[in-house]
Amino acid sequence: MSKSGDQKYMARALELAEQGRGFVEPNPMVGCVIVREGEIVGEGWHQKFGGPHAEIEALSAAGQAATGADVFVSLEPCCHQGKTPPCTEALIGAKVARVVIGCQDPNPQVAGNGIASLREAGIEVELIADDGSAHRLVAPFAKLMTTGRPWVIAKWAMTLDGKLATHTGDSQWISSEASRAVVHHVRGQVDGIVVGKGTVVQDDPTLTARPSGARIATRIVLDSLATLPMDSRLVKTLDQAPLLLVAREDAPAGRLSSLQSIGVDVLSLAMGDHEDFIGQLLDELGQRQMTNLLVEGGATLLGTLFDLGAIDEVHVFVAPKLIGGQAALTPVAGQGLAEMATALELDEIEVNVLGGDVHIHGYVRPR
Amino acid sequence: MSKSGDQKYMARALELAEQGRGFVEPNPMVGCVIVREGEIVGEGWHQKFGGPHAEIEALSAAGQAATGADVFVSLEPCCHQGKTPPCTEALIGAKVARVVIGCQDPNPQVAGNGIASLREAGIEVELIADDGSAHRLVAPFAKLMTTGRPWVIAKWAMTLDGKLATHTGDSQWISSEASRAVVHHVRGQVDGIVVGKGTVVQDDPTLTARPSGARIATRIVLDSLATLPMDSRLVKTLDQAPLLLVAREDAPAGRLSSLQSIGVDVLSLAMGDHEDFIGQLLDELGQRQMTNLLVEGGATLLGTLFDLGAIDEVHVFVAPKLIGGQAALTPVAGQGLAEMATALELDEIEVNVLGGDVHIHGYVRPR
Ligand SMILES: NC(=O)c1ccc[n+]([C@@H]2O[C@H](COP(=O)([O-])OP(=O)(O)OC[C@H]3O[C@@H](n4cnc5c(N)ncnc54)[C@H](OP(=O)(O)O)[C@@H]3O)[C@@H](O)[C@H]2O)c1
Ligand SMILES: NC(=O)c1ccc[n+]([C@@H]2O[C@H](COP(=O)([O-])OP(=O)(O)OC[C@H]3O[C@@H](n4cnc5c(N)ncnc54)[C@H](OP(=O)(O)O)[C@@H]3O)[C@@H](O)[C@H]2O)c1
Repeated sequence: MSKSGDQKYMARALELAEQGRGFVEPNPMVGCVIVREGEIVGEGWHQKFGGPHAEIEALSAAGQAATGADVFVSLEPCCHQGKTPPCTEALIGAKVARVVIGCQDPNPQVAGNGIASLREAGIEVELIADDGSAHRLVAPFAKLMTTGRPWVIAKWAMTLDGKLATHTGDSQWISSEASRAVVHHVRGQVDGIVVGKGTVVQDDPTLTARPSGARIATRIVLDSLATLPMDSRLVKTLDQAPLLLVAREDAPAGRLSSLQSIGVDVLSLAMGDHEDFIGQLLDELGQRQMTNLLVEGGATLLGTLFDLGAIDEVHVFVAPKLIGGQAALTPVAGQGLAEMATALELDEIEVNVLGGDVHIHGYVRPR
Repeated sequence: MSKSGDQKYMARALELAEQGRGFVEPNPMVGCVIVREGEIVGEGWHQKFGGPHAEIEALSAAGQAATGADVFVSLEPCCHQGKTPPCTEALIGAKVARVVIGCQDPNPQVAGNGIASLREAGIEVELIADDGSAHRLVAPFAKLMTTGRPWVIAKWAMTLDGKLATHTGDSQWISSEASRAVVHHVRGQVDGIVVGKGTVVQDDPTLTARPSGARIATRIVLDSLATLPMDSRLVKTLDQAPLLLVAREDAPAGRLSSLQSIGVDVLSLAMGDHEDFIGQLLDELGQRQMTNLLVEGGATLLGTLFDLGAIDEVHVFVAPKLIGGQAALTPVAGQGLAEMATALELDEIEVNVLGGDVHIHGYVRPR
């Protein structure tokens, strides 16, 4: 089979994998295509957490046709008993001829073991040299696996003169409805949506996905002294999505218990500076197996995350408006970097015009 | 002739007019197409200040074929003796049948007179209902004519998190080479390039167009106390482009005279706040018949212009970089507006990806 054919089937496997976004986490998204004599005889993807893996889905679609076939799978097949039996065994049992893999298992402890098992059984195995898409797809899974912390997607809407809000704090609405629809879509795919107390005080947001998506995110508010008002929209919509209040251990006990009594989940963290505080939170959310967080601001929280090097991906909406103001907030506060030459760079930039706004999406280049 | 035919020829007239940009000011850009029996028999545009008008160019290209023809001209033909004889007379003399006009003369005192003269001579005259491009083309000319002040094009480059510079003031380089090439191109079309003293102190810019363009802009520095260093690049490049230092009348006389002695033009303005100061400057530059200014920052100067409602057009370059910093400058300082709902809107937004940056161009919607 030609190299360009290989690339084509791998691209298809990645496309299939993508359909699992929001459904499979904390598992990785995986897609699989089985090809025999130049024809696709089976396709599959990991559809939901706890469900069959992509390889199993594709093998069952292919049936007998899998014998002697080429298998394209976006991630190295597992070789251990998990919620489901190892995929390597299924591939060996089906007598496939060749397995082409998009990327190795990001877990350094198991990476290569799946490949080794297949090779031992006489199956030809190839790691495709792709454009990085296979790694990109599992990057949040890989981050959680290797650092114990969730992948952080930061989102902000700003004016064309770089403002997150006016000098009085007003930010409604900077972005167009079409831009906000994108945000709602992302909300429906993540485990947690995080905001700082300032944003709650100023905007009284709901932070639910409308319409709802693949999963219901926990809304997470950083509020050291547990000042969250009982009549805030976040509290009033407790029936729609969980709410986690992150406070300091010295927050007034009375407030914590009244919030808890109405169903707010409370996380008390040791005192420390903002970076420290968010560090503890990320560890805790990682422990809870949250793979993806969407951070919706404001400037102070985004600044802390920036200074901590914790932002992995950004969605920025630039509205064709000017608001001015020395005292207006700009999206990322914090300490910041001193020299332009040391700025964080973004990769795989995508630019779209959306209801008049410019939507810029990209991934922070790791240092 | 069909309406869509009319639109097509007018579009061509506008395209021709555009070629005069930077060469004709303070005259308006004008283009003209002469059509007979569905064929273009003559084209012309106003090529440079003091040179023949578009209609005269087109008529001379058409020769005898102009008799009974349709003439498409982007701006109402003049009917007064200026540097050249009135175009209305030339059209009448050529016995054209119909004149289609893109927009009336922006000077309210003369608007309609050209049309009236043509009609009196029995020529059919139509004002085309266009998409606004004909008005757009002469907007700087119209602003100068009606307000006595130049058209202000603001330019800035910012990071994806809305910063004009790092918290230490470093801004070199935010934007890509391709973005900077656009700026150089615009520099070559304007009468003046304006910066605040802060930008000179921090960046020591040259502010020349490289490569050079249609005209050589005067570099204009707002520097109340005339602190401009003798060894600044602006001073060292006095042989390449004029330099105008705008100071307060109470600036040290010694400094003013030493700057003048080496060829710096000095403008002393009455004291007042920043808005006042720039207001006086715009009036003075209008008196000098400057049609277009490019303002290249920094934040303070752009803020003053914003608060004054003096920005007409913007070129923004958004670089895919994050720098962070509560204390970092954001592009437009000043007082700013209090409510997002009152933000200045931009029209005719154009978005281009340029060497990785997002270039956003638009016109400030008049209030
Ligand atoms: N345009 C947009 O996309 C957008 C999005 C969101 C918000 N906004 C605007 O942004 C403004 C709010 O931003 P803001 O900067 O004032 O507030 P913020 O970032 O929303 O909240 C900051 C507050 O969160 C608390 N916090 C607790 N732990 C923190 C940590 N580790 N790092 C940072 N903060 C932590 C702190 O209060 P305690 O010390 O009391 O805990 C801190 O003062 C509003 O004007 C809002 O409209 C705009
Ligand atoms: N990224 C970009 O596109 C870009 C472009 C330019 C600059 N920058 C950055 O911006 C920073 C400089 O900006 P800045 O805000 O500090 O200074 P600025 O706007 O360049 O200059 C402001 C100074 O100009 C003088 N001025 C005189 N008349 C004024 C008026 N009517 N309005 C405003 N200012 C007037 C004032 O000083 P006096 O009172 O002494 O006269 C004022 O402090 C630098 O860090 C530079 O690197 C970035």
